[in-house]
Amino acid sequence: MSAKLSAVDAAAGIETVMNVLGADARRAARQVALASPADKNRALDAIAIAIRASAADILAANAEDLADARRDGLAASFIDRLTLTPARVEAMAAGVEVVRDLPDPVGEVISAWDRPNGLHIERVRVPLGVVGVIYESRPNVTVDAGVLCLKAGNAVILRGGSDSFRSSRAIHRAIVTGMEQAGLPAAAISLVPTRDRAAVGMMLRGLEGTIDVIVPRGGRSLVERVQQEARVPVFAHLDGNCHVYVHAGADLAMARDILINAKMRRTGVCGSAETLLVDRAVAATHLKPLVEALFAAGCAVRGDAAARAVDARVTAAVELDWSTEFLDAIIAVKVVDDLDAAIAHIERYGSHHTDAIVTADQGAAERFMREVDSAILLHNASTQFADGGEFGFGAEIGIATGKMHARGPVGVEQLTSFNYRVRGTGQIRP
Amino acid sequence: MSAKLSAVDAAAGIETVMNVLGADARRAARQVALASPADKNRALDAIAIAIRASAADILAANAEDLADARRDGLAASFIDRLTLTPARVEAMAAGVEVVRDLPDPVGEVISAWDRPNGLHIERVRVPLGVVGVIYESRPNVTVDAGVLCLKAGNAVILRGGSDSFRSSRAIHRAIVTGMEQAGLPAAAISLVPTRDRAAVGMMLRGLEGTIDVIVPRGGRSLVERVQQEARVPVFAHLDGNCHVYVHAGADLAMARDILINAKMRRTGVCGSAETLLVDRAVAATHLKPLVEALFAAGCAVRGDAAARAVDARVTAAVELDWSTEFLDAIIAVKVVDDLDAAIAHIERYGSHHTDAIVTADQGAAERFMREVDSAILLHNASTQFADGGEFGFGAEIGIATGKMHARGPVGVEQLTSFNYRVRGTGQIRP
Repeated sequence: MSAKLSAVDAAAGIETVMNVLGADARRAARQVALASPADKNRALDAIAIAIRASAADILAANAEDLADARRDGLAASFIDRLTLTPARVEAMAAGVEVVRDLPDPVGEVISAWDRPNGLHIERVRVPLGVVGVIYESRPNVTVDAGVLCLKAGNAVILRGGSDSFRSSRAIHRAIVTGMEQAGLPAAAISLVPTRDRAAVGMMLRGLEGTIDVIVPRGGRSLVERVQQEARVPVFAHLDGNCHVYVHAGADLAMARDILINAKMRRTGVCGSAETLLVDRAVAATHLKPLVEALFAAGCAVRGDAAARAVDARVTAAVELDWSTEFLDAIIAVKVVDDLDAAIAHIERYGSHHTDAIVTADQGAAERFMREVDSAILLHNASTQFADGGEFGFGAEIGIATGKMHARGPVGVEQLTSFNYRVRGTGQIRP
Repeated sequence: MSAKLSAVDAAAGIETVMNVLGADARRAARQVALASPADKNRALDAIAIAIRASAADILAANAEDLADARRDGLAASFIDRLTLTPARVEAMAAGVEVVRDLPDPVGEVISAWDRPNGLHIERVRVPLGVVGVIYESRPNVTVDAGVLCLKAGNAVILRGGSDSFRSSRAIHRAIVTGMEQAGLPAAAISLVPTRDRAAVGMMLRGLEGTIDVIVPRGGRSLVERVQQEARVPVFAHLDGNCHVYVHAGADLAMARDILINAKMRRTGVCGSAETLLVDRAVAATHLKPLVEALFAAGCAVRGDAAARAVDARVTAAVELDWSTEFLDAIIAVKVVDDLDAAIAHIERYGSHHTDAIVTADQGAAERFMREVDSAILLHNASTQFADGGEFGFGAEIGIATGKMHARGPVGVEQLTSFNYRVRGTGQIRP
């Protein structure tokens, strides 16, 4: 935190604090937009080193956050996400080095063409500007999101969950150290210096024109607040109500492997499957072994009449189950008439995130991928591949379910814009 | 207009009318998204034919609009934009054929790659969904925007200016005829069937989740209303406060030709130049002939002290002039110290639309195009090339000045999104 901001922080209201933060980030954005790839990589190196050097401070701050969280009786899964260990701190530093080694997107010529009048037009990748990231109490997002934005030439304003406030602040101090050592403006990776939730509303209103895009990373309540209050563009991230559709042409063993992985590898990620659809044509052969495999893997099953008929442990699914992102070892199971019915079900209840078909029938697979309107469609692969790393993006800031600008994994490329550069020899327009 | 909607229209309030319109468009969007290129082109052919066949009806409706506009004493430039002639109706029909002949963007594989685990990933172009276009009283936009959205596989809800209501309705009737003849749903190109301005607010709130993106085409008051009220993504279209910067390395004759074209070819378009910047190093040789050429072309000049010193006709520029989009035969003229000062001026006062440098110095040109943060940068060419047609896009729905999704000319490609299609052989995630 700059001396200037600390002074403001002590004396002034949050509105002033946030607007100074925004103005500083806007100025810094121009500097990092024009920084060379080598300048940015030097900063990323310095940040990785500073995080490793600050491990003791970061862990001590995290211990304070954890003590409060335990005292407040927060859920075990919440505390797990909040917890840092020496290994997790090292993973953060290593993640910075992964981002450092990504290709620099800024200045890339996306396409180029000539016009009959001799004008040469290039479409060139440029930074977006200032990105606002609002996230829950996962301290690692502070550095993950910060360095991904930096690599793309953006400034970022980070607002982490209040339960991880001390942890994020300690991580951010290491980031500032690295930026200063590399001669880049520390304000290019800013952390909101208050737990006050009013800061979130100010960011959603754009901090007086400072913020170009908001990336929300959090649960339903954050997403709903963002949808209500945002006055700047948002990379929407809604539920991951993902489907595995076992088509009539599916091999049972492959379907079982994909289903169990899609549901159970990790149940708390947005790419985990929440509904299994099985074609009526193969229900007699496939449904029972698939349901048994789910139970064997420790998954509760809520099914339609057909699913309940094959296993007494299946409880009755209610309407709400088809649209629920359980994020737990629970799955809804339904038998559908055919491909059309499967597509109609997914379009009606799905969240346009990630959906998979298992089949040996290429034509059915192509229709599924063409007609289901989701960010990621998979044929004969697990929905848990919905991940920027698995896509080869190196790192991601989230999975966007909107259709504007970014869709699917939001990596360094999705954090850029573009402009047109037109080279002439004196052309005027007739 | 469907019989259903006409019935609703008569009996119900505008809220119901608009929500039925939205729901119909949403259903139609899925049909046109999956329509083949041939289906869409057949509809475009039929629309062009229907427009030509309806010329008399369209011109009669337009005459009624014009009579009202004259009675209400609207400005000559407004009446000019509102006026249709047989030639302008033919130009609309020919414009539909231009869009028909564009490559179909839907299904295009934008990129494809393989992962080490054998997954094959494709990024494929898909329609956006439902586009809301809000425009002023230029009746041709009804068909221009309508068919561009259709080509991209989108449904569109058109809301034209109330002064062109009858003209737009007559054009829309021809569009509906064409869609129905081609067997595509007429609701895919919908026109708001009321002059009530409340419809605009409803569209900006998304019609109960129906509208995916708003494209505003209009002046400052519309843009400001959109920025205040929009709850869905917007392809922002702000002012075109465009600059011509005559660098120390500029050839005077080329600078003069570009300046006069950029300012005077058409003064009412967003790509017209509004400010001339001249390097101090060449002010002694270039400033006077440039200012004289502006006056000779019929342009008023508001200048700084240096500009006033070279010609007594130059009036004093005030601070506001540097940020004004005159859209008229008026230009602001300033002498700047160097390239850095020119870039700083444009960043401070410009609107990030289109800016040009005239120079024989390649290094200066490259720095200008790298450092000025505008949608379109030109070197040795007129700012009036800021146009989708001039870029080779075939047609455009506007020039976006935002950085999200679309920037610069918004053509058929910018009216699409994408998704990922992942093909596997049973891969599960470790």
